Amino acid sequence: MSVDLLRELAAVLPPEALVTDPDVLESHRRDQAGWALAGVPRVLVRPGSTTEVQAVLRVASAHRVPVVPRGAGSGLSGGANAVDGCIVLSLTRMNRILELDRRGLYAVVQPGVINGALKSAAAELGLWYAPDPASWEFSTLGGNLATNAGGLCCVKYGVTGDAVLGLEAVLADGSVVRTGGRMVKNVAGYDLTRLFVGSEGTLGIITEATLKLRPRPPRATTLVASFPTLVGAGAAVTEIMAELRPSLLELMDRTTVRAVEAARPMGLDVNAAALLLARSDAGGEQGVAESTRMAAICEAVGATFVAHSSDEAEGELLMGARRFAFPALERQGSTLLDDVGVPLSRIPDLLAEVERIAGQRGVLIGTFGHAGDGNMHPTIVFDPNDPDAVARARAAFDDILHAVLELGGTITGEHGVGSLKRPFIARQLGPETHRLHLTIKSAMDPLGILNPGKLL
Amino acid sequence: MSVDLLRELAAVLPPEALVTDPDVLESHRRDQAGWALAGVPRVLVRPGSTTEVQAVLRVASAHRVPVVPRGAGSGLSGGANAVDGCIVLSLTRMNRILELDRRGLYAVVQPGVINGALKSAAAELGLWYAPDPASWEFSTLGGNLATNAGGLCCVKYGVTGDAVLGLEAVLADGSVVRTGGRMVKNVAGYDLTRLFVGSEGTLGIITEATLKLRPRPPRATTLVASFPTLVGAGAAVTEIMAELRPSLLELMDRTTVRAVEAARPMGLDVNAAALLLARSDAGGEQGVAESTRMAAICEAVGATFVAHSSDEAEGELLMGARRFAFPALERQGSTLLDDVGVPLSRIPDLLAEVERIAGQRGVLIGTFGHAGDGNMHPTIVFDPNDPDAVARARAAFDDILHAVLELGGTITGEHGVGSLKRPFIARQLGPETHRLHLTIKSAMDPLGILNPGKLL
Repeated sequence: MSVDLLRELAAVLPPEALVTDPDVLESHRRDQAGWALAGVPRVLVRPGSTTEVQAVLRVASAHRVPVVPRGAGSGLSGGANAVDGCIVLSLTRMNRILELDRRGLYAVVQPGVINGALKSAAAELGLWYAPDPASWEFSTLGGNLATNAGGLCCVKYGVTGDAVLGLEAVLADGSVVRTGGRMVKNVAGYDLTRLFVGSEGTLGIITEATLKLRPRPPRATTLVASFPTLVGAGAAVTEIMAELRPSLLELMDRTTVRAVEAARPMGLDVNAAALLLARSDAGGEQGVAESTRMAAICEAVGATFVAHSSDEAEGELLMGARRFAFPALERQGSTLLDDVGVPLSRIPDLLAEVERIAGQRGVLIGTFGHAGDGNMHPTIVFDPNDPDAVARARAAFDDILHAVLELGGTITGEHGVGSLKRPFIARQLGPETHRLHLTIKSAMDPLGILNPGKLL
Repeated sequence: MSVDLLRELAAVLPPEALVTDPDVLESHRRDQAGWALAGVPRVLVRPGSTTEVQAVLRVASAHRVPVVPRGAGSGLSGGANAVDGCIVLSLTRMNRILELDRRGLYAVVQPGVINGALKSAAAELGLWYAPDPASWEFSTLGGNLATNAGGLCCVKYGVTGDAVLGLEAVLADGSVVRTGGRMVKNVAGYDLTRLFVGSEGTLGIITEATLKLRPRPPRATTLVASFPTLVGAGAAVTEIMAELRPSLLELMDRTTVRAVEAARPMGLDVNAAALLLARSDAGGEQGVAESTRMAAICEAVGATFVAHSSDEAEGELLMGARRFAFPALERQGSTLLDDVGVPLSRIPDLLAEVERIAGQRGVLIGTFGHAGDGNMHPTIVFDPNDPDAVARARAAFDDILHAVLELGGTITGEHGVGSLKRPFIARQLGPETHRLHLTIKSAMDPLGILNPGKLL
């Protein structure tokens, strides 16, 4: 059976697209979610075209063998982790930008194109591909689509799904569907584009995407503010969002600020409860006016220090502190990076809950993230060689997810469910909505071969 | 059987929620799509709660009776038209704003709330509900959601679906699902919110929605430009969109301008091939700078007249011409209002095709619409008492849809497929994608009772 599988795959794929070398398989077993389980794949396929993806899925269907798609493997939820005996389907060879249309404001790309490569190509036309997950320099657009990846710019420009005009996807049975198109507005039929985006490879394999490009926004002005209380920082976020449209609104808590300052001293206020970073890209005088107004709001709700700058170098320096948040925490031990979301008004409650959990479990948790979207990354730091510490870290991770659900939030704002958070999905969705997920999944993938054990 | 149906509905609904009066039924048979077919309903139900909607769907399932949901009946594609023997389910009694949260930036509403009522309620908190279909003063949010309604502001602020955080919907079997939540970012599970939005009542009945509110944008500056050629106007649209983010970008062709000027003389250039209206709400100096830049772009691509104004009254006067486009065309005869979309770069081709079709069929077609989104409304004007003119108008309507598909466009940008464009949907989607629609429809509504004969 397994020999048949390989023979049949070899019959439909060029030799370079079929890999059974154990070392290569080993390097394609998992993504970046440290402690999510991963099985041992039977084979790695690296198709070069939609037709080859179709052929792989037909063989997989015939043998009822699971197919686990992957891009760069930079995911953070185990969504690309292998299951035993599966076909790992890497899309990295399908890495061409097929079309870049300045007048139509779109790009047509294969799933293996790196996010940053599209950004560069768009910039050459004076345009911008907005979505900017932290991994933008090495993650693939296919992976961004499969997880509906977020990033820093979402607060003004939306998530990956908001930048998608249309898709081509191969279904479990090998048939090809095309959704959407090159039009901005289109209500002909169900929004299947959005159904595939964020479905983590469980409904189909995305083989092409038409993505929206935008004009590049004006140069941003940057603001930093520190707050003596979490409630004050939370109030600044809600007041700014109720009045203005910042192009970025990020928060770092005290633990995170201290980690950054410890690794790269830059004079951040290590006694503040939280630091807020905000940007306006409204442009020119209006950008300055918005920054000034944001500064005034921060002061009015009790910020102890506020500074803003239209200078690009200074702005980048401040942004550097935020970008260094996770690496700085990583220097202090092993980490469990979480990704949760709450309604905007509940940010202070979330931060307070995380503090409570850190105390109760006796663990260090640094929290940072996209405050303007209510999407935060509590990051548990622990000693991997201390079994008790590991157990407490895992318990804290679960505690955070439970707390978030109590706050009316989500167990994942931008990283995805994958295998890591699968035990929590039914609880967030509730039985009827979970059942509807299963209904759609079994209608579209009746043999259950597409990325089993993920998301649902 | 029919007597049983009524008796069972009477058992689960209060008396005022069950209507069999033929005159009332007659007034609930159709929406505003003049020539879409409409059947004769058996009964009208007007539930007051989700529980009552569930009860109706359980009875309908038991009897396998079609259910046709409707809001204000302002739809333009026959999506709310009755089928023979159906239950018409009006959501207009479920018209409460349940929650309005300034700090969370969301509103929780029932489907029967009028769009304008939410706008007003949000304005009282200094906030803004962005989606603005032309019918905003009388259409319901439920109808807006079911059709994924568009409007003038979409070019910067997106369509109805972009303003939805979460939904409650009743499925065909009477079960209730909740999608999304009150969080801005959320990737836990499939994007079922977007699956329901725009599904025209064929997958479930939306009984509650959590909608995104925003800060009110700064006051807009308004620009008008007239072009001697369609190509020039199209070039202005693509150049503006590649460089700036207008808050509105509308086009009227010569036939439309002449109709407006004939009904309400206001000195518009009746010899121009097209008139462009644009707005910037970047605010203050930046708004003026953007308008000035848009004016320069228009001049550079050959506009013969350009004027812009930051004066609100002047801006409203110019906008009045655009808002009057359809009423002005209606004064010249009966109308077939179409709604098509093309990639941004194909707008001049679309306008040229419409001109060609008008000539070939010997009909008058005025085209106006949301140029910045590539979403236009060619409107065929004809004499309803001349059977030959009626036939030619219908033929032209079909010609336009065929032409749009040839241009890689969509048969509907914002009005929906309904029953009017159902004959064209399979052609746009292609056989595989159409089949996937049917797969999802039968999985979610196995008895086919939800708004049959619409969309698919």
